[in-house]
Amino acid sequence: MSAGTVYGLGLGPGAADLMSVRADRLLGRAAHVAYFRKAGRPGQARRIVEGLIPPGAAEHPMDYPVTTEIPFDDPRYNAALAAFYAECTARLRALAEAGEDVMVLCEGDPFFYGSFMHLYTRLLGVVPVEVVPGITGMSAAWTATGQPITWGDDVLTVLPGTLPEAALLDGIRTADAVVVMKMGRHLPKLRRALAEAGRADDAWLVEYAAMPGQKVTRLSEFPDETAPYFSIALVHGQGRRP
Amino acid sequence: MSAGTVYGLGLGPGAADLMSVRADRLLGRAAHVAYFRKAGRPGQARRIVEGLIPPGAAEHPMDYPVTTEIPFDDPRYNAALAAFYAECTARLRALAEAGEDVMVLCEGDPFFYGSFMHLYTRLLGVVPVEVVPGITGMSAAWTATGQPITWGDDVLTVLPGTLPEAALLDGIRTADAVVVMKMGRHLPKLRRALAEAGRADDAWLVEYAAMPGQKVTRLSEFPDETAPYFSIALVHGQGRRP
Repeated sequence: MSAGTVYGLGLGPGAADLMSVRADRLLGRAAHVAYFRKAGRPGQARRIVEGLIPPGAAEHPMDYPVTTEIPFDDPRYNAALAAFYAECTARLRALAEAGEDVMVLCEGDPFFYGSFMHLYTRLLGVVPVEVVPGITGMSAAWTATGQPITWGDDVLTVLPGTLPEAALLDGIRTADAVVVMKMGRHLPKLRRALAEAGRADDAWLVEYAAMPGQKVTRLSEFPDETAPYFSIALVHGQGRRP
Repeated sequence: MSAGTVYGLGLGPGAADLMSVRADRLLGRAAHVAYFRKAGRPGQARRIVEGLIPPGAAEHPMDYPVTTEIPFDDPRYNAALAAFYAECTARLRALAEAGEDVMVLCEGDPFFYGSFMHLYTRLLGVVPVEVVPGITGMSAAWTATGQPITWGDDVLTVLPGTLPEAALLDGIRTADAVVVMKMGRHLPKLRRALAEAGRADDAWLVEYAAMPGQKVTRLSEFPDETAPYFSIALVHGQGRRP
C-alpha cells in the first residue's frame, strides 16, 4: 500500500468561490478534512467550506491549546504549541501511512503566515505533502478598497502589527505601499508610526475582506483602539502610471 | 438597456486550475474576452485560458504599442502608453454601453502590479467595473520552492528589480523575507545588493512558477546575467516557529 498525501489546501481569503479550481476539486473528493480552530469555535477555514465537504468525509479538527492566555514570548507558549503541532503531525501522518489523503484547510495562502507551515516542516520527508497556493487575505483587502495597491516600481512591505513601533516606522518609511496584518490591540502603535511617517491620512482599514460583513474605513475615521481579528491596514502605492 | 460590466479577471499565476472558482464561472459564460499582449505574441493571460473560452465568444486582443524599444523614462514611452490605454478603454466602454459584459484576462492578481489597473482607473465611474482577485505569481513562486516565505513576525518586502541598487539594498536590509519581480537585465545589480546585505546565499530564482517549464534554482547557481521574463527571486524569512 502506498502512503496518502497530506495537502495544505489554500482556501483564499474567505468567500468560497475565491478558492482555486484545484482546491475545489481536491475538496470535492476528500475523505479526510483537517483544520485548526480555537477550542469551542467553528474555525474560519472550516466556515469557508461550509456545505462543500463531501457527505461521509471524516473531519479532524485541531484545537489550539492556547491563544492569548500566555504571551507568545513566554517559553511556555512555545512549548505548548510545539507539543500541539507534534500531536497534529502524528494524527495526519497516521492517516497518510494508512493510505489516506488528507486535506488540511488553510485560510489564505498556506506559505504566507499560515499555521499549516508548522505541520508541513514536520511532515516533509516523512509522508508526501503538497501545497496548493491561495489568494491571500491582503489581495482581498486591497481589492475591497477599489484601489490598486502597487503601480510601476512601487515597493510593497508587509508588516506584522506585533512589531515594535520603531520597526513599523522603518518599514513604512522604506515602502511605497504598506500592508499591516495581525493588528488587534497594536492599533494605537500603528497609528503613531503612520503619523510619524506622514502617512496617517493615506491609510485604510479593511475588516473581514471577502467575508460576510466586509467593511472598508479610512483608518483616521476608525473609532476603536483595537482592530478586529480579521482586519488588515493598507496604504496604497502611488507609483508611475501613464 | 442597462450597461454591461467590465471585469478584471485575476487568473492566478499560470496553471488554469489555479484560477478562482469565481473567475472560472465568469469565464465560462463570457461573450467577450479581452487581453493584453505583445503584438505578434499569444499573450500569457490568453495562454492560461486556452481551451476555456466558450465557443462563439468574441476575443479582443489589446496589442501593446511599445515594450522595450523606448526606455520607460522617455516621455514618448508614457505618451504612447497613455494613448494606448485610452484607446483600449474606449473599446471596452463601447461594449459595456452596448449592454455587454467583458472579461479582461489578468495574470496573477489585477491590483498587484497589473496592467488592468490602467483601464480600471479610466473606466471607474463611467461603466460598472469589478475586480476578481487572483493568486499572485509570487505565491506560486514560494510554493514552488517548497519553503514557507514568512513565519511569525517576519517582514516581507516586494521589490521591483528595476529600482536603483541603493534602493534594492535598503529594501533587502529592512526585510526578513524578500521577493524581487521584474528582474530581466537587472539581475547583476540584484546580485550585488544581496551580497552587500549578506543574503546572496539565501536567494532562490523561480522561473515560470506554476507554468510549464517551472524551475527552481539557487540564485548563486543560476548561470545567466539576465533573468527570463517570468522569473521571481526570493529570500525566505526565518522567523519564530515553535
